[in-house]
This record gives sequence, C-alpha cells and structure tokens, in this order.
Amino acid sequence: MTQKRSEETRTRILEAAVRRFAVSGYDAASVDDICSQAGVSKGAFYHHFPTKQAIFLALMQGWLAVIDLGMEAARKDTIPETLVYMTNLIPGVFAAAEDRLPMFLEFWLQASRDEKVWKAVIAPYRHYQAYFTGLVEEGIAEGSLKETDARAAAQVIVSLAVGMVLQGVLDPHGADWEKTAHESMQILMNGLSNGHQR
Amino acid sequence: MTQKRSEETRTRILEAAVRRFAVSGYDAASVDDICSQAGVSKGAFYHHFPTKQAIFLALMQGWLAVIDLGMEAARKDTIPETLVYMTNLIPGVFAAAEDRLPMFLEFWLQASRDEKVWKAVIAPYRHYQAYFTGLVEEGIAEGSLKETDARAAAQVIVSLAVGMVLQGVLDPHGADWEKTAHESMQILMNGLSNGHQR
Repeated sequence: MTQKRSEETRTRILEAAVRRFAVSGYDAASVDDICSQAGVSKGAFYHHFPTKQAIFLALMQGWLAVIDLGMEAARKDTIPETLVYMTNLIPGVFAAAEDRLPMFLEFWLQASRDEKVWKAVIAPYRHYQAYFTGLVEEGIAEGSLKETDARAAAQVIVSLAVGMVLQGVLDPHGADWEKTAHESMQILMNGLSNGHQR
Repeated sequence: MTQKRSEETRTRILEAAVRRFAVSGYDAASVDDICSQAGVSKGAFYHHFPTKQAIFLALMQGWLAVIDLGMEAARKDTIPETLVYMTNLIPGVFAAAEDRLPMFLEFWLQASRDEKVWKAVIAPYRHYQAYFTGLVEEGIAEGSLKETDARAAAQVIVSLAVGMVLQGVLDPHGADWEKTAHESMQILMNGLSNGHQR
C-alpha cells in the first residue's frame, strides 16, 4: 500500500510539473508551485526528485519510452514496410509533445548553454540514430534495402522525423502531418529499397 | 554621409543585440543593455527599431536573405543537380545559426505562447515550403523528376533541412554534417528523380 501510494505521489508530482511548466515555463515554475499544484509537501517532492531538472528528465524519458514501445510494436515482415508503418505513430507523438514543446524548447535552450543539460538532450537523439542504423542494416541483410551507408540512411530518417515533429507541433494546421509523414517515408523508401514497394 | 552613418548605427545596434542575446538570452537582454553594448543612445535605438522584437525580426530576415541568395546562386542545369548542390550551403547555414540558435529557440518558445510571434516564425518556414514546391514542379516539368506530389516532396526537403540544421547546431561533432546533408539529398533524389543521377 505504501509502495502504491508512493507511486501515486510521484505521478501526481509529474502531472503537476507538466501543468506548471506549460503555464509559466520551465525556468519560472518553482518547486513550491509544483508542490502546491500537486498538493504534496516539499519533503515528499524531494523524496522523489532531487532537483527540478530530475523532473524534466523523468518526463522526457517517459515520453521516449512510449515512443520506443510504439516503434517495437510497429514491426512488420520487412524493414521498408516497418519504416512506412511506423509513420502511423506520428500523430501520437505530436499529441504527446504538444503540451510539452515549450518545455522541450526551454530545455534545449539551456542545453545550448550548459554541458550537463546538453548531454541529457543529446542522449536520446543518439539512441534513435543507433536504433535506425540497426534497422537499416537489418534491411540490407534481409535484402529488402539496397547496399547503402546505413548511418547516412538512418541520419535521413532521424532528421526527417525531428524536422517533422518540430514543424507539426509549431504549425499543426500547416499540413496533414500524418499523410505527409507517410508520403515522406514512402519517397525515402523509393530511394533506399530494392525493387518495388508493396 | 548622414545616410551612411545611420546605416552604420543600425548595423552596430544589430551586432550588439546578437551579442547581448547570446550572453543573457533574448528575454533577459534589455534595450538599455543593447544600447550600452552598441554605444548608442536610446533615442538612436528607437529611431531604428520600435521594439526589441523588431530587432529579432531584422536579424532573422537578414539570416534568411543570405540563405536565399545562396540558394539562387546554387542553380545548376537540372533540378536534381541543383538540390544536391544546395547542400553545400549547409556548413554556412550552421556557422551563421550557431551564435543565434539560443535566440531562435527562445523566440520559438515565445511563438508557442504568442500568436503574433508565431506568425513571424511561421512565415519563413512557409516561404521555403512554397519555394521547394516550385523547384520540384520545375523538375517535373523539365522531366528530371518523376511525376510526384510536389508539395509532399517539398515537405520532405524542408523537414530534412530543419531537422538537420537543428541537430547540427546542437551536436556539431555528432556527424560530418556537410557529408551527411549531401548523402541525404542524394538518397532523396534516388527516390524522386527520373533515371540515373549524374
């Protein structure tokens, strides 16, 4: 029961932090604000999170974990099919990022000035770079993708995704992003795959 | 002579603003800070710029104008050649963006909260979207590109560029960005062009 209550408190603090960061920004939101929004004591807060930065990292990791699960669930018979199918995740990523974009931008801003923050921001990006390099290598090995520089191909996929998520969050009505993501990946696959796409 | 001196003052204010924004951030940098950095009176400042926001817009437009010139100068015989050649601009874009990235991120952050700022940020992005749609249509008309949805293809190019500039500025040593940009565009062109690339 105590374990369960402790997890509930942690979740309540995280939800309160998202709301405070969205309203007043990451910098301006104080630990006091978050505690009063969550209805918890400062003692409880510091029991779960040593710093406000630890909250940000927990939120970012939670978001990335959801994306990872979605990517693993998107596996299809071949790598080109898997990559095209993965674009169906994009609307969910947009929805999850929308509330948090100001917070991410603020953190990014800090990353450009603070080495420690920079490392926390760059880690997931390098993780995806490695993940897609692996997928492309798998596609080459199974014969569905042409012999190609897997790292360069992964870079295209990651850049495309980063660019699209940022634009989609900033300009949600500027395009049909789900359709655009799908068509974009299809164009890429036309350049990368062996023979015809299914 | 007065005209020339006025232009010099304007340039001095802009240069001082870049430095102040880089050091203390866009929000924290005051008009007083910028004036004392530039060695000009507040009267001179307001003669050139009604608000601090006007300075930001002038800096952004200056940066974009340089990119536009570079893009026009990159024209080659065919559209696929032009697009691949344009990636040579990337290192220059990185260099010009480096000092200004924190400022752009901060402005982007404001854009996510303020309708007026949002419009200023979204305008150049839509401009590039339209520009590349035009290039792709031209490529289809000249027969160098396959029949394709020009808007979708332009979207891929813009997303790729946005994603790559952001990553390149944040993680300059994470990849050889000039090579990566070149290879990425080549992969895209393999998917978009008619027949073999030169």
